[in-house]
Amino acid sequence: MSVLILHILYVVAITAEAMTAALMAGRRNMDWVGVCLLGAVTALGGGSVRDVLLGNQPLIWVAHPVYLLITAAAALATVAVARFMHRLRLVFLFLDAVGLVVFTIIGCNVAMRMGLPVVVVIVAGMITGCLGGVLRDILCNEIPLLFRSELYASVSITTGGLYVAALSLDLPHNAAMFGVMAFGLAMRLLALYFNWHMPKFVYTRDLH
Amino acid sequence: MSVLILHILYVVAITAEAMTAALMAGRRNMDWVGVCLLGAVTALGGGSVRDVLLGNQPLIWVAHPVYLLITAAAALATVAVARFMHRLRLVFLFLDAVGLVVFTIIGCNVAMRMGLPVVVVIVAGMITGCLGGVLRDILCNEIPLLFRSELYASVSITTGGLYVAALSLDLPHNAAMFGVMAFGLAMRLLALYFNWHMPKFVYTRDLH
Amino acid sequence: MSVLILHILYVVAITAEAMTAALMAGRRNMDWVGVCLLGAVTALGGGSVRDVLLGNQPLIWVAHPVYLLITAAAALATVAVARFMHRLRLVFLFLDAVGLVVFTIIGCNVAMRMGLPVVVVIVAGMITGCLGGVLRDILCNEIPLLFRSELYASVSITTGGLYVAALSLDLPHNAAMFGVMAFGLAMRLLALYFNWHMPKFVYTRDLH
Repeated sequence: MSVLILHILYVVAITAEAMTAALMAGRRNMDWVGVCLLGAVTALGGGSVRDVLLGNQPLIWVAHPVYLLITAAAALATVAVARFMHRLRLVFLFLDAVGLVVFTIIGCNVAMRMGLPVVVVIVAGMITGCLGGVLRDILCNEIPLLFRSELYASVSITTGGLYVAALSLDLPHNAAMFGVMAFGLAMRLLALYFNWHMPKFVYTRDLH
Repeated sequence: MSVLILHILYVVAITAEAMTAALMAGRRNMDWVGVCLLGAVTALGGGSVRDVLLGNQPLIWVAHPVYLLITAAAALATVAVARFMHRLRLVFLFLDAVGLVVFTIIGCNVAMRMGLPVVVVIVAGMITGCLGGVLRDILCNEIPLLFRSELYASVSITTGGLYVAALSLDLPHNAAMFGVMAFGLAMRLLALYFNWHMPKFVYTRDLH
Repeated sequence: MSVLILHILYVVAITAEAMTAALMAGRRNMDWVGVCLLGAVTALGGGSVRDVLLGNQPLIWVAHPVYLLITAAAALATVAVARFMHRLRLVFLFLDAVGLVVFTIIGCNVAMRMGLPVVVVIVAGMITGCLGGVLRDILCNEIPLLFRSELYASVSITTGGLYVAALSLDLPHNAAMFGVMAFGLAMRLLALYFNWHMPKFVYTRDLH
């Protein structure tokens, strides 16, 4: 049951990620193929990088190519419905936050199943949750937002850390998982609402 | 015989890709080492990313380092002959189109030999055909041309799709392969000549 | 004994790399999480890319996550001590050069232990030595310095080449290793001091 819920949340999350990436493609006047590619890379890139780094073959979209089709289709559909999406802006911000915590938990689960150390489990969650957006920003020739923005990576690290801690306390798995996800989601939404930021490091001297 | 022809076309294609990448390096005043590196990454990067994503070890240049030497040498030779290359511009556009379809077919073959699903076979062909240029553009700090330009990825996807379809119809392998390559090459050259483009997605609202 | 020295040099080098990357993060006003991430990616990225390309699993930070903690902590500490680092500028240039040759030798050793061809051994050394900086520059949205700057990749290639040559001459392993490292270090420091550059390839015509 909880596996099913996590899976449904995963499909909702990759769809939402592909659609917001498609909007960014539209801001750069990419063509329809570019829109599909950017959508698929953003939605599936974080998990792919995690699996390549951990040596966890085959990648999910190689074993289940339907996810490639879902994300490409979601990105393409965005071209048609973009004019209505502005009104759904809050919905997409919410779904993006859901995606962040869902991806994080899934990434932690993968690393735990491989028996990896706690630090690597948390990092695997963060890579899964955040790296799709980093790839999107690199392909759009931007400094990744992750490095400069609201508590995005921090939410992922906190979520993963609490999840690992809860499991090590032998809390019931499902209660721990959904409780931690709710916490992470709340943290991200509060950060967005109150415009919380990490302190910035500002260094103005020349490097050389 | 057809394996030999495909292999010769592959060597011609990586040489041409390395040389056009070297010209782009020259436009950014890279030094000679940078020219060699950009040439090798552009020519061999698509296949490398494919093999890393599919878990197909060892990579071709690890097993056969001669390809590293060929691409680095081709890029370096470009420094000497660049002044004459402008007159050969059409030759290089043609060789680049040949490379696109040859890389695509080779990528499809790799994925088919691994017994992967049809969608993944086509994506493997596209990654092989297109990703070298994406890496080149990222290293040159450009928005990848792939996402905005003529029917480049589309030609690759069409070529791979027709190839898979032809094989599933039990057409003779060599006839299917070279027929599909001729079709893909024609599609690319016509797109260049008539300046065909995919429709663009233009979205001008703020994202946040 | 020599293994211990190499290991100490490795820890010094990843610390220095993480700290100089943190300064570059500060120049772009990244937040504290971004500083840690950029530090860890710069210090550990070269070895990670090498191991992914060579299929050498598990990656070092997956097996020994302490290196993740060291590099993230070093980057974070930089936020506190940045104002004093300018006076230590020469120390950091020196440690960066040490890192370049240490990473190169370690990369060569990994490829040799896998029984790979000589060209791949040298390339593995260069990837280990240079790719962290390339990733750093891409994430900071710069054309990688490697492609345009002082004898950085050249020092790495020369160091790796001499190392392979010395071992093939059956010189004692430790003498060869530290001798070659001293040579590479001297070459890099002289290049910095005398401002040596590779010749640049300047090409000003339009590509299309």
